[in-house]
This record gives sequence, structure tokens and C-alpha cells, in this order.
Amino acid sequence: MRSKHQISTLFLAILLLLNLGCFASPRKSIRSRHPCKEMVFYFHDIIYNGKNFKNATATIVGAPAWGNHTILANNNHFGNVVVFDDPITLDNNLHSPPVGRAQGFYIYDKKEIFTAWLGFSFVFNSTAHKGSINFAGADPLMNKTRDISVIGGTGDFFMSRGVATIMTDSFEGEVYFRLRVDIKLYECW
Amino acid sequence: MRSKHQISTLFLAILLLLNLGCFASPRKSIRSRHPCKEMVFYFHDIIYNGKNFKNATATIVGAPAWGNHTILANNNHFGNVVVFDDPITLDNNLHSPPVGRAQGFYIYDKKEIFTAWLGFSFVFNSTAHKGSINFAGADPLMNKTRDISVIGGTGDFFMSRGVATIMTDSFEGEVYFRLRVDIKLYECW
Amino acid sequence: MRSKHQISTLFLAILLLLNLGCFASPRKSIRSRHPCKEMVFYFHDIIYNGKNFKNATATIVGAPAWGNHTILANNNHFGNVVVFDDPITLDNNLHSPPVGRAQGFYIYDKKEIFTAWLGFSFVFNSTAHKGSINFAGADPLMNKTRDISVIGGTGDFFMSRGVATIMTDSFEGEVYFRLRVDIKLYECW
Repeated sequence: MRSKHQISTLFLAILLLLNLGCFASPRKSIRSRHPCKEMVFYFHDIIYNGKNFKNATATIVGAPAWGNHTILANNNHFGNVVVFDDPITLDNNLHSPPVGRAQGFYIYDKKEIFTAWLGFSFVFNSTAHKGSINFAGADPLMNKTRDISVIGGTGDFFMSRGVATIMTDSFEGEVYFRLRVDIKLYECW
Repeated sequence: MRSKHQISTLFLAILLLLNLGCFASPRKSIRSRHPCKEMVFYFHDIIYNGKNFKNATATIVGAPAWGNHTILANNNHFGNVVVFDDPITLDNNLHSPPVGRAQGFYIYDKKEIFTAWLGFSFVFNSTAHKGSINFAGADPLMNKTRDISVIGGTGDFFMSRGVATIMTDSFEGEVYFRLRVDIKLYECW
Repeated sequence: MRSKHQISTLFLAILLLLNLGCFASPRKSIRSRHPCKEMVFYFHDIIYNGKNFKNATATIVGAPAWGNHTILANNNHFGNVVVFDDPITLDNNLHSPPVGRAQGFYIYDKKEIFTAWLGFSFVFNSTAHKGSINFAGADPLMNKTRDISVIGGTGDFFMSRGVATIMTDSFEGEVYFRLRVDIKLYECW
């Protein structure tokens, strides 16, 4: 009777370990798809077009042989590289108080349709958030939603990893667009 | 006798924990170098040279002062930035049915020899794979094999991390090259 | 008495598990902010200015409409893209024996003040270190210290993640600067 109880105690301890997924290898089993942090932001991109220097937050810096640096190129802007420093807001209003800056670049990378590749950071320095979130990934911008990677973070977002879902919230000609970004972090330290 | 058994039960539970490496710090101990997923792909890059627009999958978008956007620059192409949207195939045949697109950019970043830096994604949208894998890293392309980082993923490759080994499988003049990519993921969710 | 002891054994096992943070979700609890590796390096950037080709380690490859590829542009260099292959040294002397190369790019991304975005690798091939460390992040270079992300690594730095703190150690006109980089890895495999 005694040893039976002791065996069941050990058995329960082992079960607990198994359920909690505490195994070193393979790592497949220890991951949760439940975000440890969720945030929604908007950012606003105004591309320099030769006339709007004061308001512009982005500028063309690379172009294919058939392009230039004031007008996005033919063939779905294939080959245009754009550098940006865009205000981040909590709602979809360009004139809302910015809570940070989205800084980095995007490249249009396909001849046949609009699609882009993004490398950028959200930089925060307010009472709400201090630190940065770094992003990279493909942005097939004709899709309603696109997922890119959160590849790291600093400050309040120290060592973060996750997925950000991007939606084009507004698109006005070839000068202004607004993106909504739903950030889900799955690694929080 | 009773308590001896109970102590040994506890002792076993502790041993289990130690063996499974479930310690928060240092993290060195909990990592496995056994991949949780392995894949091999090829991708094909045809650089625009002023005459091959229809077939081109890549184009020069940045150049040093001594360069232009239709011919790769002198001095080992130092300073050339190339944007690409290359077909991914399962074998080394350019004409095999593409299973996805490799999209992003590379920069030639050294005067003295050929070497590059890569930022790109594999974008899949087929029955076999949906989602993206994001890569970044140095590509010293005169080496037979080069390792870059898998910095994140989405969809089927949600939150992936790993190492990709790149080999130049073919190199024809300055217009076409084909890379073989052996992807090993060590974080799978 | 017997069952009381057995319950306390089980209770201790559960406590152990809780303390060790072996829970799959949320992941917040299992992280240590104690680095598993720390390193300090310097790297040296000499930008090509039309006259210093031999010594130059970096060159302008992208510019806004108001810029060119031999002089950094007005408006805080907004829109300049620079590609580099800089020597890494263990101290702040440009002429110390290099221990590796810092290779990649930076972009100046703001009109109003100097700030940049970095994507690059440290590439080592010596007896001390073999492999690469990959970095990405915002570099608000007027701040005394700036944190960027270590987004991956290969070789000796297989699968690394961490935070690198950058300091401008010297800045001479618009041709030479030297950065000190304090690398702290929090994921070591």
C-alpha cells in the first residue's frame, strides 16, 4: 500500500513534467501560440514628390535604370527603395499626437504586381513606452493582411519576438498611405 | 523506511528536472542543435542588364559614384544594391514549377573581393507551404558554403528561427546565378 | 501520517516546477536578463568622398533627389544609403590588427536630426572567433548610447540573440567615424 502511493506520487510528478512540456529537444513542444503582449498602432507615410518637402516623411533613394528619385517607377515601382521616418499614432488620424516613429526602409520588389520588403523599427520614447521593436519581412501589399516578423526589441521590448499583421488602412494616390499594425509578441522577457 | 522512500521520490523528481535542463538561467543548457525542420530549395536570379526586361527577376537599384543601374560596378561590384523577386524551385532547373518566390535585396559590400549582405524572404502560397521565412546575413560568396540566419517566419513557419546554408549552384556571367539553400530550423512553434 | 508526507512530497515537486518557471505559456516567466556572453568591439567607417578610394571602407549608394553619391546630402543626410565593409578591432585604434569585418548598410532616415537604421553583420574568421553575428535596428545617433538587436548568428555564435549597445567613439567630419559596440547575448546555444 505504502509503495503504491509513493509510485503514484512519482507518476504524477512525471505527468506534470510531460504536460508542461519541459523537454529540451525537440523544441517543438514547448511553444505557446498565445501572445504575451498585443498592441495596435497606425503609421503614416508621405513620400517626397518634389513639391512636398515640408510634410514628407519618406523619400525615394533607389530606383531601377528606368526610374528616378521623385516619382515611383513604372512596372509596379519594381526597384524603388524608400527610406522613411513616419509618425506612429494610436488611431487612424494623421494628426493625432504621435506616440513614436516608424523608421527604416521598404523596397518594391516585383515587376508584375505591387509587393514590397520591409526593414524598420518602431522607436518609442514616451511615458507609455521606451525602447524599440524591430521588424523585417515580405509585404505583398495587395493582400488585405500581411504578416511580417518581429525580429527583436530593446528597452520595454527587450528581446521580443513575434508576428506583426499589417493592413493598408488608407492609400491616396502615390503620396500618402497609412498602415495599421497589429503586433503580437510571443516572446516577452 | 517510509521517509527514505519519500525522499528518494523527491530526489528522482529533482533529478528529472536537472536532466531536462529546465533552468531559467543561464539558457545555454536548454538548447538542442538538432533541427526541428530541414528543407532544401533553389532560387534563380536574373539581373536586368538593359536588354532582358521580360526575363529579369532582379534589378540594380543602388550604385557607388563610379557605377550605374544597368551594369554591375567595378571593384567587385562594391556598392551595388540589387532588388529581387526570384522563383524558388525544388531542384536546380530554372524551368521547374516555382514553389514560391525569394524576395528582397542584396548588396555587394567589399572593394577587394566579391562579398554580399542579404535581407530577403521566402514567400510560399501553395498547398505544400503557406507563409514566409525571413533571412538576414553576410554572404561571402567566394566561399563554397555560407551560413546566414533565419530571423523569423509566419504562417507554416510561425516564429521560426534557424540557420540557412547557401551554396552557389551556378553562376553565368553577370546576369544569372542560382543558389541552393539548405534551411535548418532549430526553433519550431 | 503516511499520506501527509506523500502529499508534501508532491507539493514540493510542484513548487520546484513553479520556481523554475517551466511553464509553456505565457513565456514571460522563463527568461533571464543575465547575459550568457558579453563582448566589446570597435569598428571604423571611412566613407568614400571622391578622393579617398584606397582607404575608403564605405560608400554612398543611395541618395534622395537632392543628393549625390560622393557627398552626404543636406537635411541631415536624410535618404542616404551607405554600404560598408569596416575593420573590427579590439580597441579604439584604427590601425590595430582587425579581428573581423563589419559588413552591411546604414540609412539616414530623418530630415530633422541625424538618425539611422542599421542592418549588418560582424564576420569573424580567426582563431579567436569563427562565424557571424547579425544585427538590425534603429540608431538615433545623437544619443550617447543606442540599443539595437542581435537577430541571429552562425558558427561560434550559432542561433544567438541579444542586444548590442552602440556608442559613437569618434566622429571626424563627414568621412570617418568609429563605433564602440557592447554585445550582450541572452540566448546562447
